[in-house]
Amino acid sequence: MSAGFTADDHRWMARALQLAQQGLFTTDPNPRVGCVIVNADECVGEGAHLKAGEPHAEVHALRAAGERARGATAYVTLEPCSHQGKTPPCANALVEAGVARVVCAMQDPNPLVAGRGLARLEAAGILTAHGLLEAQARAVNPGFISRMELGRPYTRLKLASSLDGRTAMQSGESQWITGAAARSDVQRLRARSSAVLTGVDTVLIDNASLTVRESQLGLPAEEARRAAERQPLRVVVDSRLRLPVSAPMLSLPGSTLIATSRAEHDPAAIALSATGAQVLSLPGADQRVDLAALVSWLARHAECNELLIECGATLAGSALRLGLVDELVLYMAPTLLGSSARPLFNLPLEEMAQQYRLQLTDTRQLGDDLRLTLSCRQEEH
Amino acid sequence: MSAGFTADDHRWMARALQLAQQGLFTTDPNPRVGCVIVNADECVGEGAHLKAGEPHAEVHALRAAGERARGATAYVTLEPCSHQGKTPPCANALVEAGVARVVCAMQDPNPLVAGRGLARLEAAGILTAHGLLEAQARAVNPGFISRMELGRPYTRLKLASSLDGRTAMQSGESQWITGAAARSDVQRLRARSSAVLTGVDTVLIDNASLTVRESQLGLPAEEARRAAERQPLRVVVDSRLRLPVSAPMLSLPGSTLIATSRAEHDPAAIALSATGAQVLSLPGADQRVDLAALVSWLARHAECNELLIECGATLAGSALRLGLVDELVLYMAPTLLGSSARPLFNLPLEEMAQQYRLQLTDTRQLGDDLRLTLSCRQEEH
Repeated sequence: MSAGFTADDHRWMARALQLAQQGLFTTDPNPRVGCVIVNADECVGEGAHLKAGEPHAEVHALRAAGERARGATAYVTLEPCSHQGKTPPCANALVEAGVARVVCAMQDPNPLVAGRGLARLEAAGILTAHGLLEAQARAVNPGFISRMELGRPYTRLKLASSLDGRTAMQSGESQWITGAAARSDVQRLRARSSAVLTGVDTVLIDNASLTVRESQLGLPAEEARRAAERQPLRVVVDSRLRLPVSAPMLSLPGSTLIATSRAEHDPAAIALSATGAQVLSLPGADQRVDLAALVSWLARHAECNELLIECGATLAGSALRLGLVDELVLYMAPTLLGSSARPLFNLPLEEMAQQYRLQLTDTRQLGDDLRLTLSCRQEEH
Repeated sequence: MSAGFTADDHRWMARALQLAQQGLFTTDPNPRVGCVIVNADECVGEGAHLKAGEPHAEVHALRAAGERARGATAYVTLEPCSHQGKTPPCANALVEAGVARVVCAMQDPNPLVAGRGLARLEAAGILTAHGLLEAQARAVNPGFISRMELGRPYTRLKLASSLDGRTAMQSGESQWITGAAARSDVQRLRARSSAVLTGVDTVLIDNASLTVRESQLGLPAEEARRAAERQPLRVVVDSRLRLPVSAPMLSLPGSTLIATSRAEHDPAAIALSATGAQVLSLPGADQRVDLAALVSWLARHAECNELLIECGATLAGSALRLGLVDELVLYMAPTLLGSSARPLFNLPLEEMAQQYRLQLTDTRQLGDDLRLTLSCRQEEH
């Protein structure tokens, strides 16, 4: 399928992937896409998709290239769309601009439309190729791809612990395990996520707000401002609807979804709905919320690409047991909280054979702390 | 005290430090020392101390330099000795060879002799300087320096755990948490240590041998052979002398020391002594061994430079609480063993204020596992 690519092809696609990153915090629910247009070994136009409803990467790049797009090669990190969405199809724009060749890093991950954009281009006599730096392109949009291919979000479980795997003292005391650099990194994880999910106890006890705070993102001012414009959907797992209508979270910018095992006509549900929150009834076993159904619902009905779970040991243990976690992001502080402190996961296992083996994909020092990123997807092992 | 050093001085001392590393596994109980002799910008002799009783680094380098040592500069990672030990004093050899200048990375850490070697050289009209790459030189000999300056060994606590800070299942099942690369690294930690300390339960239950195994060192063949020639002293903390005289450890190469709270004339002590093991009575509180006294004893009576503790949660917790641990070496496997598995430390703490904050000094991936090295010394924080 994918033709042999030259070193120049690689170089231009790498640049297009850099451009795609410009939309990291802002394109949601759309994918992050970058485009470079090259004519006679010269870059004549660049573009990135920045925000849903605004022009796609190809359109920005074509505008920059103008007449020089004629006969050029367009490098795009994702197959150009062939359908009318909020903006006209990019495949048409590329045809109209007269480009001679289009190279994509990857095909559209939606199996229903994969290949249609390329076919549209080929029908117009444009040379096409795909599969260049595909793994890198997939890594830019893990959530969008998961939603399109699997019908569920790419789910990160974020936890903070001591070296001895503890999150808080037995009493619950837990403030400031990790330092400012780690907390800022969590803010960036939130900002790239479509939704942030937690349990009601975390809201009630730790007063978690789940919001993106511009001043704590550790980004250049303008980038931080744009990133904080879009607040991820706050999702609170609250089986018995214990969240009070007076909860500060309910009046923060952005939307709140409360998942419950109670009925939607329950008086508490009606009261919470009146605050503007959405109450979703997803009863599972043991009068708990059906977590797996909730995660799927977020992909199917809330266009949730990347889901961040920030929660306590109980919900973390459940999410892991249910196989809902794609990636564990563990912030580890260089401290020991001792053997009576609270565990990372409520996860009682009897035998070594039951252990959850993950794959370490990244290690980074953040201030005094360590961030470990681990893949939980069995098929990647 | 220390004159300004040139870039060339730095370069030659860096080479001398490289040479010192050649003795990493073999000089015990002597320090690792390297020496470079430079005449007219040319290296005319190099040497490293390799084994106690054999020539010191300076002697090797002077032999290689021959007549070209006259008027040269000698770079030595440690102040040349001025006293007659198993070999004649190096300061004399440098004087006799006619070197013009001696640069040391650090003075002798023994406060009783520090500066004497330099004074001997100066008395002979040789220019001297010290303090060049001193921190690096100290890092080569943490144990020798600790023993000389503080009267105790540099003590590493080695533990292996899951991401959630567990060392074994509740049942005790624990094999193969970490992989071969991590286990080979532990072998190298043992090989550089003067002694390896554990609790009797680890010997009885896990059948720990504490030996250096040539085939598992992951070193070039000749280096592995030399490293495994010297077995670190095995130290078993055995308050009630439960170690049977038939224990396999007692017939392995190298020596075993059994620390007990029982008297040395206890029948079990006499029986164990008859196997060739040394039994040391160090009764502390609660009929336990006085761990702090044991660690000091090892420095004062067994010339123990680097002590490696490999043990279970109880002994690990005690060593930490007593402030005996200089460095924690934590091998972390990318796995979750769950909340009923055994903790790293038996260390019941009530409040965050009681936490043990360490300082991360190194992070390294070994196969699928991670090795975290943390300093526990409060004065370095």
